[in-house]
Amino acid sequence: MTDQAATARAHPNIAFIKYWGNRDEVLRLPANSSLSMNLGELHTTTTVQFDPSLAKDELSLKGKAAEPGQTARVSQFLDLVRQMAGSNTFARVESENNFPSGAGIASSSSAFAALALAASAAVGLTLDEQALSQLARRGSGSASRSVPGGFVEWRAADRDEDSYAFSIAPAEHWALTDCIAIVSEQHKSTGSTQGHSLAATSPLQAARVQGAEQRLELCRAAIMNKDFAAFAQVVELDCHLMHAVMMTSQPGLHYWLPASVAVMQAVRDWRSAGIPVCYTLDAGPNIHVLCPVEVADRVTRQLQEIDGVLRVLGSGPGGPARLVTQANRIE
Amino acid sequence: MTDQAATARAHPNIAFIKYWGNRDEVLRLPANSSLSMNLGELHTTTTVQFDPSLAKDELSLKGKAAEPGQTARVSQFLDLVRQMAGSNTFARVESENNFPSGAGIASSSSAFAALALAASAAVGLTLDEQALSQLARRGSGSASRSVPGGFVEWRAADRDEDSYAFSIAPAEHWALTDCIAIVSEQHKSTGSTQGHSLAATSPLQAARVQGAEQRLELCRAAIMNKDFAAFAQVVELDCHLMHAVMMTSQPGLHYWLPASVAVMQAVRDWRSAGIPVCYTLDAGPNIHVLCPVEVADRVTRQLQEIDGVLRVLGSGPGGPARLVTQANRIE
Repeated sequence: MTDQAATARAHPNIAFIKYWGNRDEVLRLPANSSLSMNLGELHTTTTVQFDPSLAKDELSLKGKAAEPGQTARVSQFLDLVRQMAGSNTFARVESENNFPSGAGIASSSSAFAALALAASAAVGLTLDEQALSQLARRGSGSASRSVPGGFVEWRAADRDEDSYAFSIAPAEHWALTDCIAIVSEQHKSTGSTQGHSLAATSPLQAARVQGAEQRLELCRAAIMNKDFAAFAQVVELDCHLMHAVMMTSQPGLHYWLPASVAVMQAVRDWRSAGIPVCYTLDAGPNIHVLCPVEVADRVTRQLQEIDGVLRVLGSGPGGPARLVTQANRIE
Repeated sequence: MTDQAATARAHPNIAFIKYWGNRDEVLRLPANSSLSMNLGELHTTTTVQFDPSLAKDELSLKGKAAEPGQTARVSQFLDLVRQMAGSNTFARVESENNFPSGAGIASSSSAFAALALAASAAVGLTLDEQALSQLARRGSGSASRSVPGGFVEWRAADRDEDSYAFSIAPAEHWALTDCIAIVSEQHKSTGSTQGHSLAATSPLQAARVQGAEQRLELCRAAIMNKDFAAFAQVVELDCHLMHAVMMTSQPGLHYWLPASVAVMQAVRDWRSAGIPVCYTLDAGPNIHVLCPVEVADRVTRQLQEIDGVLRVLGSGPGGPARLVTQANRIE
């Protein structure tokens, strides 16, 4: 590749304290701080090549030309990178996930984290982790959390330069496993960007945001202390608070399927029976079932027995977004 | 029967604007005003006979001796009636429902409305509707709404004597039908009385209560104008606000079953397709699907086709609690 090309890989993340709603839609400055874990087994790999012969940006996903809306969103993001670098050159972007997209696994988080790193490197910028997280945030809020490694906190702030994510513990800190119960592989009907803009229409959003900082502190402490019981309590509460806002926004956003509810009930029953396990859901019907790695095989088997669970993806914590060489691309 | 006996019949009601949480647990003074419709096809029939030969109150349900906890609750209620009448006589209480109890049809509403009327009449008190509603409230909050007829509003207030229900429109005003999709006939694991006491532990209860008066006004106007679209919007919102509070209380109360979610989704789809229909759920998994009588047969047939729906009970609006003679008891 030329100097004008780079390939980056990033992991999607699962939020334990949720991001829902912005204080600034254009800058994607979130209503509240959030906390997540990168998913090491899942990743997006993206190559960006700036090419003076192009008349516009091009985007291919897994080798197929992307839809116009997707290309426009990526092109808008590349404008930010070009602006930072003083460049006018269009780019060819190739991206692929090793996991199904659009169904509650936050593919936009890894997509824009990888794109931010690949594009900035390709155009010749050297950004530190903070600047890269801040840039990724402009593409998709949760992408800011896929730039640092392991367990990650993203601070809410009123200014662009103050809202970025940082690691609170490396991936090696705690062998939490996310057993993702896939109950639908369909794309969600309301994307997150549109959903965020509805958050303020819920009579419950202000109360959710008001308590977020305290929940984040409880969650951070639970992670630092590897206190699963405390972790489970605050993670499920925070998940239900976000879905309460979603279901009571105007129009209401209803992401749960019957099987989602079946898994939730099962997980609560298992925890009552002494298994350290809890759940969270993003803006989709699939359920992230969290547990220490020691019980992950058992939990996975039990999840597979529930009606409506199509399959279970498993992942432990993952590292930061990173540049990869061509030789390392194949996996 | 002697002068010391009376039989009363009352209908359960379905709340469109929900009662959840008390400002005074003992007096059952609710956190917010609520609005409901009596269900004319469903009823509780209760006979109370004060008998000087009894050493304690006795309660039988459908001819079988009740459990001690149920008898204690009824006895505690009869103490209020005895106190009002200056009596020390114990009573024999026989009660039966013509519908399954404990599964999201508010059987305590009709039970304590019928008990309030039968007991006060048997002991020789003549209470007007307001006093009777106030008395019934002490047994079960929602019972206050089963005393007046048709569409009923129950005012929240800080004093015992100011919190009672009254009719805003008679049963004949609007032929709304409640198609109750039964998805479970099991008794709920957390009863309403216990649930109400948890409401304040949710970070969302204050916001729910704060907006209740405005939603009640929207709902009352929709009923008066027979504006189904406006009715549907506020009824579903209010239902989701209550369940948001339930799911985020500590511990969380999770009443939905997979089939509940399937019915909710179906109802939203039908409404999008132009059928005037909406849903609400009380503290249980069964779903009250509301529609004008003209589409009730069609809605009932479609509900019966949904996986997990065991059967569908239908009811239009019902009248007030009333005394019945022995001759009228059989139905």
